[in-house]
Amino acid sequence: MTRVTDLDLSADAADLLEQLVDIESVSKNEQRIADAVQAALLPLTHLTVTRHGNTVVARTDLGHPERVVIAGHLDTVPVNDNLPAVRDQAEGTDVLRGLGTCDMKGGVAVMLKIAAGVPAPNRDLTFLFYESEEIETEFNGLFLLAQSDPDLLRADFAILMEPSDAVIEAGCQGTLRVDVIARGERAHSARSWKGVNAIHRAGEILDRLNAYQARMPVIDGLEYHEGLNAVFVNGGVAGNVLPDVCTVSINFRFAPDRSEAEAAAYVKELFAGFECEITDSAPGALPGLDRPAAKEFVEAVGGEVNPKFGWTDVARFSALGVPAVNFGPGDPMLAHKQEEFVPLEQVYRCEAVLRTWLGA
Amino acid sequence: MTRVTDLDLSADAADLLEQLVDIESVSKNEQRIADAVQAALLPLTHLTVTRHGNTVVARTDLGHPERVVIAGHLDTVPVNDNLPAVRDQAEGTDVLRGLGTCDMKGGVAVMLKIAAGVPAPNRDLTFLFYESEEIETEFNGLFLLAQSDPDLLRADFAILMEPSDAVIEAGCQGTLRVDVIARGERAHSARSWKGVNAIHRAGEILDRLNAYQARMPVIDGLEYHEGLNAVFVNGGVAGNVLPDVCTVSINFRFAPDRSEAEAAAYVKELFAGFECEITDSAPGALPGLDRPAAKEFVEAVGGEVNPKFGWTDVARFSALGVPAVNFGPGDPMLAHKQEEFVPLEQVYRCEAVLRTWLGA
Repeated sequence: MTRVTDLDLSADAADLLEQLVDIESVSKNEQRIADAVQAALLPLTHLTVTRHGNTVVARTDLGHPERVVIAGHLDTVPVNDNLPAVRDQAEGTDVLRGLGTCDMKGGVAVMLKIAAGVPAPNRDLTFLFYESEEIETEFNGLFLLAQSDPDLLRADFAILMEPSDAVIEAGCQGTLRVDVIARGERAHSARSWKGVNAIHRAGEILDRLNAYQARMPVIDGLEYHEGLNAVFVNGGVAGNVLPDVCTVSINFRFAPDRSEAEAAAYVKELFAGFECEITDSAPGALPGLDRPAAKEFVEAVGGEVNPKFGWTDVARFSALGVPAVNFGPGDPMLAHKQEEFVPLEQVYRCEAVLRTWLGA
Repeated sequence: MTRVTDLDLSADAADLLEQLVDIESVSKNEQRIADAVQAALLPLTHLTVTRHGNTVVARTDLGHPERVVIAGHLDTVPVNDNLPAVRDQAEGTDVLRGLGTCDMKGGVAVMLKIAAGVPAPNRDLTFLFYESEEIETEFNGLFLLAQSDPDLLRADFAILMEPSDAVIEAGCQGTLRVDVIARGERAHSARSWKGVNAIHRAGEILDRLNAYQARMPVIDGLEYHEGLNAVFVNGGVAGNVLPDVCTVSINFRFAPDRSEAEAAAYVKELFAGFECEITDSAPGALPGLDRPAAKEFVEAVGGEVNPKFGWTDVARFSALGVPAVNFGPGDPMLAHKQEEFVPLEQVYRCEAVLRTWLGA
């Protein structure tokens, strides 16, 4: 066994973030960073630390009537010539640049600073440092924990520290993938009037996509924005054959006032006359800003709340009946980009907001 | 090396055809069938046999003033659960069903029967059994032979034994392939309004294809029939990304009164506003029925002549100044179809017509 990497939780949040980024932790390769997080938390006597795969859970048990989950994933998308971390400037401010700075070790650094630095919070806390958020659901640490130890996810409110420019992003849109299939009849292209060209028939599918008008419902005062897009199209047999199949793979991002079943029904009706095969689906999450715990957090942050367009694990908390928001440092548009970075000011700001809200 | 498959040239043409069909010979995999053809012809002392890749050439040199090329390709389109050959009935007559029965091992069987059974023809003969007709020109055995040994293609007349229902089909339509490219701008599908979906833009390409009206000009008394078809469509980056490129590959079959340049100009104008990249082009062949050698063969067959819709290698002979026609067993409409078959009566009839015309 290799030696566990030391993390210095007394360091400044930016220095701690740099240490975290330099522990490479692409999905399925999180053991080293999970070991480091676990080892750093174990000496803290106000926390009960447990390990589940490469997911680390740390809880206070102070007997408060309210419990809050603060969660962040430890993994990153694949390395793209963007490690180790580099101190830099962007848009006139100090940033840390490198894989995972934005998505989402900035949030993980804040979590560790709060875990170590707020030993007597005014609410009980459950910190979830989890594995494999960037890949298939079956490996997702939060998904696995919801199955093996659902009690660990129980809370009155959850904060997911995904990048949101240090502003609350509430709810999230659902996502559904459907293959819409046009069928024809093969024929030699020299005598095309003997067959039916499936690609030509798929023109009607694209026409319907082009005629689509995005719905933009306002929910709890937040304006969502749906989207219906072809993400793949494939058809063809040979250079001299009319193809008999053409498949348009469509991604529907739907506002959280629709259920998955409603979203599927909508898409099937829109493409009536074509075969529709749902290949993937995940529900959205309502903002839930009417819940008391959510309201208080919004006030602590200063009142600004935006809708979340991308799907995030807040939907998993929603499904468990726990209102949840995204709140973390970094621009979500930079996630998964080679040049991702996080403004250090946002890291400090998130830490300060949480400290204040937790009464430290 | 595997053992060469025996072909029995003394067998009935239908039995010989069945042997040929059961040697799988999808394009680029013709070695086994070429070996078998070469081995069967080598013992025939009236023929000079040479091998060029997987193309086999067999010539008489009897000193006749006239030379005729009889040509057929050995390859087939990909297997589609239609091997081995099956004896069957269709439309009240005996047929052989299976991959290549129609396109065009029926013609190859006739060629082998004539090569073996007419040792003293009234015209000198050049038999060309060639490879890779069903794929890109660069692999076509006739194209390669025209470059390496053009003398082997010299003749006063050429008969290409492509399926034509045992009737002469004169001339052929040209073929052109063009990639029509729609471009957009990538964005995450959760925020699709930030990008431009290239697949959606390709809807306009399919709309123009659906609005296309085929031209049907009459040339030398024969009515041709043009066609414009998408044969491939491809676009997509990832399941959560708006794609920035979508390519529609289109095959234009044009009547022989248009040149290749005119055909290219027509297509480019039709898809104005999109990038167009010509990827393949071959000229048509005018019927050429005014040539004496063509007239004599038309009389021998009984006078019936139809226009040829499909591009065939008759255009290669036309380009060399050799008048050429298609004449072979099988319905050309069945070429490349899973259920292709050839009526055995047509195989026998083609053999008989050629025997008579060659004075046997």
